[in-house]
Amino acid sequence: MSAILPVKQITLIGVGLIGGSFVLDLKRLGLVEKIIGVDVNPDNLERALERKVIDAASVHLNANSITGSELVLLATPVSTLPQICDTIRPFLSPQAIVSDVGSTKQSAIDAFRRHLPDHLPHCVAAHPIAGSDRSGALAAQFGLYRNKKLIITPHGQENSESIARIETLWQAVGAETHRLSAADHDAVFAAVSHMPHLAAFAYVHEIFDHPDGQTYLQFAASGFRDFTRIASSHPAIWTDICLANKNSLTDLIDGLQNQLQRVRTMLQKEDRAALYSYFDEARQTRDDWLDRQ
Amino acid sequence: MSAILPVKQITLIGVGLIGGSFVLDLKRLGLVEKIIGVDVNPDNLERALERKVIDAASVHLNANSITGSELVLLATPVSTLPQICDTIRPFLSPQAIVSDVGSTKQSAIDAFRRHLPDHLPHCVAAHPIAGSDRSGALAAQFGLYRNKKLIITPHGQENSESIARIETLWQAVGAETHRLSAADHDAVFAAVSHMPHLAAFAYVHEIFDHPDGQTYLQFAASGFRDFTRIASSHPAIWTDICLANKNSLTDLIDGLQNQLQRVRTMLQKEDRAALYSYFDEARQTRDDWLDRQ
Repeated sequence: MSAILPVKQITLIGVGLIGGSFVLDLKRLGLVEKIIGVDVNPDNLERALERKVIDAASVHLNANSITGSELVLLATPVSTLPQICDTIRPFLSPQAIVSDVGSTKQSAIDAFRRHLPDHLPHCVAAHPIAGSDRSGALAAQFGLYRNKKLIITPHGQENSESIARIETLWQAVGAETHRLSAADHDAVFAAVSHMPHLAAFAYVHEIFDHPDGQTYLQFAASGFRDFTRIASSHPAIWTDICLANKNSLTDLIDGLQNQLQRVRTMLQKEDRAALYSYFDEARQTRDDWLDRQ
Repeated sequence: MSAILPVKQITLIGVGLIGGSFVLDLKRLGLVEKIIGVDVNPDNLERALERKVIDAASVHLNANSITGSELVLLATPVSTLPQICDTIRPFLSPQAIVSDVGSTKQSAIDAFRRHLPDHLPHCVAAHPIAGSDRSGALAAQFGLYRNKKLIITPHGQENSESIARIETLWQAVGAETHRLSAADHDAVFAAVSHMPHLAAFAYVHEIFDHPDGQTYLQFAASGFRDFTRIASSHPAIWTDICLANKNSLTDLIDGLQNQLQRVRTMLQKEDRAALYSYFDEARQTRDDWLDRQ
């Protein structure tokens, strides 16, 4: 493996788990000299400085925080990308790569096209498949991306050097890089991530709305804990993701309604054989997936 | 704490995770002299003997395997209780306590009433709240019940010594004992356990039925893994539980359909504020619960 050229300066916009963990590893590897963290929350920036996730902090997107950075990484909730792209446009160095880490990619590319049309060759839409229900700078950790996937969703107007540079940096922190179309990406992650989050929120909301819900919760144990873990995720981030991917999600909601109706009918008919096969097919599907991990 | 009187002989019917872990701890504590394991699966019995979960094995319910045991513990799928109670009736010693570990308690009490009517003072319906998606004798482990809950659901005709004896043994292996009516128990566990299992099976089944499901699964990560963990549970056990608790489950299915419809409407309307509040209420409900654990 040839030596990776270090980055002199990165601006990280949104200093949380995802962006913070990425730059922590780049620093540890000596692959970046200086990180400027930009965040709307000054307390969060304070913590990021204390923990040496970033080297300088700003609550503003301006020449000081943007100009001169070789990479500007957008790691804020996906709904903020249009506004941020619009704001940083006048301050970007001509060769600066703009990349993101958002969970929906059609929306990211749309923001690049609309708000950075002249900068498109340097705009790379990317999504690291790692996370946690924790958030904020204090959640940033070393090694988060080791053996995780990083998806690039090309919009077709990137120059190949920009894509290669982003891939190289993510590979350096341990990720395995893949490419998907943005539409395929959004359909895939609706199914394996966004809809499970939505369903976990919905199920906890059912308990919240139930008059006996609090009594029920006294007896909840590990099954409930794991099934609902992702319902502890950040509501603002997930509001954004669900809205940005609403078409895929609407189809998956309809699909789950359908599945629940099928099980309801089997229960009503007390159709033991059908219920067993249904559960067994699901179990086998999951176990086969798990075996491949 | 006064010394606990050891049990001379226990018959464990169904040598798996739940019953096996209970007797492993009783043995370790010197609270039982001999365990007779009865199971329909000779291989499973073989493994249980090798691992010293049990001291003797039988595939038959007869005088040899039942008579003389002070405790007969039913740890098989809940649908088998009527048949097993009927079969063991002629072989039970007069003072033998019959208890179970099933996840649905109205069905257990119904089996006791119908098939062991003369033995009711010694029949104690119980449910230890611990488990795993693993099953079989090899899944049996020490310490499974430490700081877990054990629910007794009295039917009203037990003698107090039988209940106290069962409570004492479960407390000895680390469980905290509670009492609930069987109807309340079944409503509570439908909400915190059975419905999450059903929903996890249903969601994995949606992926299984989807033409692109296998592609999707290539990108599934920790959120999917935890949300669907309980879909790796044993399909026969869960078919039984769902059928035995179908009324509570039908209501919860309707409730979840309702919740999904609400979210669908918010997405369609792009009602960001409503979606945020909805997710936030769910997040808060789960986090409050988690804080109390």
